[in-house]
Amino acid sequence: MRVLGVDPGLTRCGLGVVDVAPNRAATLVGVGVVGSSHEQSLDARLLVIANAIDQWLDVFKPDVLAIERVFAQTNLSTVMGVAQVSGVVMVAAARRNIPVAMHTPSEVKAAVTGSGRADKASVTAMVTRILRLDEPPRPADAADALALAIAHAWRSGSAVATGSAGTTAAQQLWRDAEARAKLTKNKEKPGAAWR
Amino acid sequence: MRVLGVDPGLTRCGLGVVDVAPNRAATLVGVGVVGSSHEQSLDARLLVIANAIDQWLDVFKPDVLAIERVFAQTNLSTVMGVAQVSGVVMVAAARRNIPVAMHTPSEVKAAVTGSGRADKASVTAMVTRILRLDEPPRPADAADALALAIAHAWRSGSAVATGSAGTTAAQQLWRDAEARAKLTKNKEKPGAAWR
Repeated sequence: MRVLGVDPGLTRCGLGVVDVAPNRAATLVGVGVVGSSHEQSLDARLLVIANAIDQWLDVFKPDVLAIERVFAQTNLSTVMGVAQVSGVVMVAAARRNIPVAMHTPSEVKAAVTGSGRADKASVTAMVTRILRLDEPPRPADAADALALAIAHAWRSGSAVATGSAGTTAAQQLWRDAEARAKLTKNKEKPGAAWR
Repeated sequence: MRVLGVDPGLTRCGLGVVDVAPNRAATLVGVGVVGSSHEQSLDARLLVIANAIDQWLDVFKPDVLAIERVFAQTNLSTVMGVAQVSGVVMVAAARRNIPVAMHTPSEVKAAVTGSGRADKASVTAMVTRILRLDEPPRPADAADALALAIAHAWRSGSAVATGSAGTTAAQQLWRDAEARAKLTKNKEKPGAAWR
């Protein structure tokens, strides 16, 4: 399953494409951030993002687009821009008959780290481990988009199935990652062993 | 100047096209409401509206699109849908190089009725008079979209110029409308004389 995760924003909109195998193994396909300038008019800013989304959908042809569910209660100063961008993004997917899935930030954090209240650093660390990367994904802003994509794949279908020893997929992966982290402490090049 | 006014909403999105002459005379060109069903997914609902906006832009070819400026503070329950729709609408215009203008509800009310705190009935009554219609525009929900279109034309360029006797365009029109209303009281068919 190929998922395009979108972390909507007017100034910086994170994009991450991940392929997730039936065994939940996730592979990084593409990652980026599209930004628009404060100096442009709102409609011009939205068009910049719309064009980028169109391009990503056409190039990567995801099976599903996962986007953050926006709540009016949070971040009043930026929520309108986020909502406007999310509307544009959803229409771009709908035009291509690509289903849209929405997940809350805490759902994403829980799926990826095992805790719905994990901080940004923990999410980035887990995304890096899950995707078997040597270093955190760049640009850093795109980690949330990748987490969204991973979380969607894991939460849908086999995602809710439990892993070995009755653990959830996220818990299992967290354990695996911890085991790997311990392993690499004894190596000269941490991370290389994860490949 | 041809203006497409859009009153954004997920359940009902009002659309109104008005031609406004340099002397501020406004003529109704098109009016309608596009609605989407609660039973559809959010992306499908946004696509219904996006397709309608595309159609209206291509058929009526407005010089400018006027849309309500949305604030996060108002109507928390519907504001997210309104913002998502407004993002979709603005991108549709930007794709066609049609400029987008935003006006607050109080700016629209002030321009059309002379009072920023006018109620919906007053706005509809003034829109009906300004456009020289025999009856209020149908569907009723579209009156705000027409008011937006009229307000934009009047507020931009010649709109801010004062009318005769130092009155603003809105004040002058209000007086004209009052004079006409008095006139029609003595006629058998009120409204017919306004044509």
